Amino acid sequence: MRILLINPNISVSVSNLIRAEAQRAASPGTQIEVVTAPLGVAYIETRFESIIGAYAAATLAAEHEAQHDALIIAAFGDPGIRGIREAVNVPVVGLTEAALMSACLLGSRFSIIAISRRITAWYRECVQANGLIDRLASIRCLDQPLRDIGAVQADHETRLRALCQQAVEEDGADVIVLAGAPLAGMARTIREHIPVPLVDGVSSAVRHAETLAALAPGRARAGSYAPPPAKAHQGLPPALQALLERGPIH
Amino acid sequence: MRILLINPNISVSVSNLIRAEAQRAASPGTQIEVVTAPLGVAYIETRFESIIGAYAAATLAAEHEAQHDALIIAAFGDPGIRGIREAVNVPVVGLTEAALMSACLLGSRFSIIAISRRITAWYRECVQANGLIDRLASIRCLDQPLRDIGAVQADHETRLRALCQQAVEEDGADVIVLAGAPLAGMARTIREHIPVPLVDGVSSAVRHAETLAALAPGRARAGSYAPPPAKAHQGLPPALQALLERGPIH
Amino acid sequence: MRILLINPNISVSVSNLIRAEAQRAASPGTQIEVVTAPLGVAYIETRFESIIGAYAAATLAAEHEAQHDALIIAAFGDPGIRGIREAVNVPVVGLTEAALMSACLLGSRFSIIAISRRITAWYRECVQANGLIDRLASIRCLDQPLRDIGAVQADHETRLRALCQQAVEEDGADVIVLAGAPLAGMARTIREHIPVPLVDGVSSAVRHAETLAALAPGRARAGSYAPPPAKAHQGLPPALQALLERGPIH
Amino acid sequence: MRILLINPNISVSVSNLIRAEAQRAASPGTQIEVVTAPLGVAYIETRFESIIGAYAAATLAAEHEAQHDALIIAAFGDPGIRGIREAVNVPVVGLTEAALMSACLLGSRFSIIAISRRITAWYRECVQANGLIDRLASIRCLDQPLRDIGAVQADHETRLRALCQQAVEEDGADVIVLAGAPLAGMARTIREHIPVPLVDGVSSAVRHAETLAALAPGRARAGSYAPPPAKAHQGLPPALQALLERGPIH
Amino acid sequence: MRILLINPNISVSVSNLIRAEAQRAASPGTQIEVVTAPLGVAYIETRFESIIGAYAAATLAAEHEAQHDALIIAAFGDPGIRGIREAVNVPVVGLTEAALMSACLLGSRFSIIAISRRITAWYRECVQANGLIDRLASIRCLDQPLRDIGAVQADHETRLRALCQQAVEEDGADVIVLAGAPLAGMARTIREHIPVPLVDGVSSAVRHAETLAALAPGRARAGSYAPPPAKAHQGLPPALQALLERGPIH
Amino acid sequence: MRILLINPNISVSVSNLIRAEAQRAASPGTQIEVVTAPLGVAYIETRFESIIGAYAAATLAAEHEAQHDALIIAAFGDPGIRGIREAVNVPVVGLTEAALMSACLLGSRFSIIAISRRITAWYRECVQANGLIDRLASIRCLDQPLRDIGAVQADHETRLRALCQQAVEEDGADVIVLAGAPLAGMARTIREHIPVPLVDGVSSAVRHAETLAALAPGRARAGSYAPPPAKAHQGLPPALQALLERGPIH
Repeated sequence: MRILLINPNISVSVSNLIRAEAQRAASPGTQIEVVTAPLGVAYIETRFESIIGAYAAATLAAEHEAQHDALIIAAFGDPGIRGIREAVNVPVVGLTEAALMSACLLGSRFSIIAISRRITAWYRECVQANGLIDRLASIRCLDQPLRDIGAVQADHETRLRALCQQAVEEDGADVIVLAGAPLAGMARTIREHIPVPLVDGVSSAVRHAETLAALAPGRARAGSYAPPPAKAHQGLPPALQALLERGPIH
Repeated sequence: MRILLINPNISVSVSNLIRAEAQRAASPGTQIEVVTAPLGVAYIETRFESIIGAYAAATLAAEHEAQHDALIIAAFGDPGIRGIREAVNVPVVGLTEAALMSACLLGSRFSIIAISRRITAWYRECVQANGLIDRLASIRCLDQPLRDIGAVQADHETRLRALCQQAVEEDGADVIVLAGAPLAGMARTIREHIPVPLVDGVSSAVRHAETLAALAPGRARAGSYAPPPAKAHQGLPPALQALLERGPIH
Repeated sequence: MRILLINPNISVSVSNLIRAEAQRAASPGTQIEVVTAPLGVAYIETRFESIIGAYAAATLAAEHEAQHDALIIAAFGDPGIRGIREAVNVPVVGLTEAALMSACLLGSRFSIIAISRRITAWYRECVQANGLIDRLASIRCLDQPLRDIGAVQADHETRLRALCQQAVEEDGADVIVLAGAPLAGMARTIREHIPVPLVDGVSSAVRHAETLAALAPGRARAGSYAPPPAKAHQGLPPALQALLERGPIH
Repeated sequence: MRILLINPNISVSVSNLIRAEAQRAASPGTQIEVVTAPLGVAYIETRFESIIGAYAAATLAAEHEAQHDALIIAAFGDPGIRGIREAVNVPVVGLTEAALMSACLLGSRFSIIAISRRITAWYRECVQANGLIDRLASIRCLDQPLRDIGAVQADHETRLRALCQQAVEEDGADVIVLAGAPLAGMARTIREHIPVPLVDGVSSAVRHAETLAALAPGRARAGSYAPPPAKAHQGLPPALQALLERGPIH
Repeated sequence: MRILLINPNISVSVSNLIRAEAQRAASPGTQIEVVTAPLGVAYIETRFESIIGAYAAATLAAEHEAQHDALIIAAFGDPGIRGIREAVNVPVVGLTEAALMSACLLGSRFSIIAISRRITAWYRECVQANGLIDRLASIRCLDQPLRDIGAVQADHETRLRALCQQAVEEDGADVIVLAGAPLAGMARTIREHIPVPLVDGVSSAVRHAETLAALAPGRARAGSYAPPPAKAHQGLPPALQALLERGPIH
Repeated sequence: MRILLINPNISVSVSNLIRAEAQRAASPGTQIEVVTAPLGVAYIETRFESIIGAYAAATLAAEHEAQHDALIIAAFGDPGIRGIREAVNVPVVGLTEAALMSACLLGSRFSIIAISRRITAWYRECVQANGLIDRLASIRCLDQPLRDIGAVQADHETRLRALCQQAVEEDGADVIVLAGAPLAGMARTIREHIPVPLVDGVSSAVRHAETLAALAPGRARAGSYAPPPAKAHQGLPPALQALLERGPIH
């Protein structure tokens, strides 16, 4: 099985974190690849940046879908996930969706630990868009400038562990989601210090993508996730053009 | 006052409908301009196409914000609205937001009349994202191929009027929203035949944009709609680059 | 265009604040009038007092509707708004509805700043009745006796500004609504000190009323906002009698 | 124990229905009285009429509270209930609240049977204001002119029974609420023909009022149901004046 | 009238508290009986223990229903309530349902005071299952080991009173529910010290059970609370067997 | 990896269906076992029967947890899932939870296809308890007596396929969940005939259980899913006793 993780941002250091955790999480026989967006920002922490990330992710998904059994949008917040799911022929999983689904299988209410204050508004709206706001115990966050987006784990471990602890003790979290690709893999490192299950988006996404590819529930040919009807267009990259011209599946 | 309507799609015929209704709705002294996306699709009816429309709208907003007092994202569904609102320094209004706010001032529950079945899923999610799903009485839609996106009003007037009537009689709608830029201006035409208030997105957006520009409630310098923090980037159009480098307002 | 603001309370000093802000906010050519309730209380801060305010507002609306293009119920909490909207033939806007709609066009979540602790329960129920509770970040309030209802702005400016700041920093408000007619116009005064958009009910209501009057979306002749069916009655003021006898519009 | 039912409308024939069912439902030793509003309408079916009904009910409650152990607002929709509850010193129960609470003790989801189409929008908003909209299976209604508000039961029994049956079979109702004082007592008559529990507002209200009076949970002296703070007023009936001057309880 | 309170736990000391308060609350002529579960735990504070309690309660209900006019599941959290309601032929009331319904008749928002931190998650889910989460102001709890489950009231009165006070002052509670059979009767003791109505589950349940038995709204013969269809089974206690074999009512 | 599926009902024919689909779905190296409840009913379609099923499932989970890496409660509706999750030391997955999580990764809104009308009320409450009611498009069901619970698939295939089609065309389902262990494996059979992804509870549960066991997110030692505090008990099966005496994990 071949799974592609799409980093919709330009940070190669984050792609390396993603790849490492994806490989640790993958089942035997699963082949992991990671692509990094050629255009975009270092990491997404605003709704504005997510517009760019969604466009980059959609373009990469269009270019690469044919060679993979499943795609993963490897940024928390899942930029473009629903649109990409409509357009490509393989299962698509996002880090947020995947982490929330894992969390829901482990407890009633979850907290999210985020890497900046600014990013929390977008995350909250993502949880709402997933229809799970009633299970959100809290979002807690780092509140300092990030020296190096690839080194957040090492720079802030103590504070991140304290945030987890507060979520359990003060907010009633049954499960903690460590949010954001820059924290990929950290759950493994600090798990023993946290008294509730700790969920990582990358590893959850890899396993859920394997599950969807293995169960093969079928591609939507009707309803709101069927391929977009063929439509006039102009000025778009060739891969997006191809998807816009593909039309219905019979 | 100068207001720019951004058609995030490539259809010049729809831009013409938008311009005509915007000029009819504008107050004396308001100057209306419309730009049409140089890249994208004929019209948005899927989440996938809205990714492209959001990117196109953000780029156009970045290019033009300095010359206008307010911007309007002139496609129902408001592609990119929240992100663009963060990034630009003038008020930004979307057709959906504007129509829903008008509707909420006219009754308790509203129905939306849409131009295709496929588009209704995206509209429903837009209403949810606005937190107003409990006031949605129904979404009703045309269910035939559209011969010409610029001629929907003429081609389907009888059916559109029937859908309005059903929403009132069967779904409990207090107000009807005619959704989609291709229906811009139609509310004026058919209003006398419909027994409840009829809301048009373009005219609502123009008036609400005037209101926000006139009341000048202030630009967010803190919170989740402050300008995005300056951030490393690559490969983006110059106008987007400029927004990403602008950083905080003091 | 003639717009009437109905103060459903007996405080002439508050009517003066309302009139001043309404005139500042109105478009050129709009004529502003304010009436003060001949019966009722100094200001409404309980559900009980809102019963009286709603009755007073309905009576004044019935008396004056024929001479105006739109009515405004000029007390936060909008006593009687839905019922009055059914009965009169011109658009009716309330301070709360108007402020919430403005706030929704400026950000995702809003906080309300109120003039007493007691009043906050009623405000919360108004936000719920508008279906917008999921967008309410917080209600913060003054918590001291009010020396003079017409002088709250001057007496409590420092504290009110501090409450705004807390709503942004601690509650995640994207927008602040200064609630209550006694704060009419204060947004203009303190705006530069507050880092997010600041919304005023009176000015929002005036502009939205102008918009509804200008767009002329149509009066409900069917559905739940059609005129009440003619019905037997007794003991009511002549203006209310007239509305109860009017019956359906054809 | 003395319980007063306040008919906020002017229909003596409906007051007679209310009294008869209240007496059938009351425990031994409970004394039932009914007052009919001296001003108002024949029955409430719009939000506008409920403004009048609330004012009439508040005035009657103020006049009579001292002589009774509990008050009942005897119109479905409970006009003024929350405000009256703040102001008087005895428990206050409304027909809607009482019926919904009974229904919630008998099943998961309930349907409401109403006497006119127009009235259903107001009922729906009442269920929402009670926070119970997720348990509402449906509202079904008569849809013909009512010859005589005191004779609805006799005139429409067949149709009302059919509506109950449809609510069970098509809407998933576990319980049926027969709504509106004009249907007072009808549950007893048709119960054997309906395959789910049938709830009547008047009898529920009488029993719940007895319960609250017997359990004596205490009158709010703090929070949002404490007596309204004493406040300047003018032009009001003496009984309302007295409540507005009473001020806090210590 | 004969009412049976089923303590689904094994604590005789708690059964004694339950009996005492039930007798104080009952109307003249009502005969109160209490049974204690022969199998189970001392008291339920986890979802796991509630599985056991539900099974014990169902078995006892099956054994005793024929001799009573109404049953009460006398543990807060109402283990098994909905299932038991389907299966037996008399009304069934739970302490949580009963207390919440009383609270809803006394104010808009309620707080729950609980005897341990662990128990609060289960209580929160019960409020949600009742559809009333939007009216929950807070759950506050004791946070110390309980020396003797039958002596919680005496051991912790000061702290419990302080929790009530905090719920009113900090959380906006209009009403307080003292939760858990171990607190049965305490509302009477401390009521005068608490400035809002105080609700007790046992007394509420007794009165509401009397009401349902007296109003006789009818037993469900259709819908989701009709008796379970007869079904193959094995290995169950005789009383459960009998219910499973009973089948539909005609 | 060893995974145990617990059939909380007594039907061996259903256990066989479960086992067959579980083995088809399992990854290489996963060992599947199935136990059938020694006490209970043929299948659960009411809340009452789910009380029995939850007790049976809890007892079996207690007996077998030590020998397995994950447990599956193999009845739709997940009787006892939350309580069992608290008490045992390995991950626990239910068919409903698992199917809903799969569905949420495949589309925005899902429909559930059920084997009887009676069962749908319980399923609806399960979706609500999972916080996902806003994503439920519909529940559709067979409405005929079931000749043989182990032969539902063969007996009703045509009707089940028609229900799926209606859910897509009339209810807006993006994904279909075939609900109930008696339908285990049917998704594979009919998938090609249904135009949207088709989700099966057993296969989803097996794969999600593997994922949780592989990712090892940690067992709750704090919060509401920590092991129940040790507690006095009597009359329980030895395995339940052992869990009740185990107490906290350090």
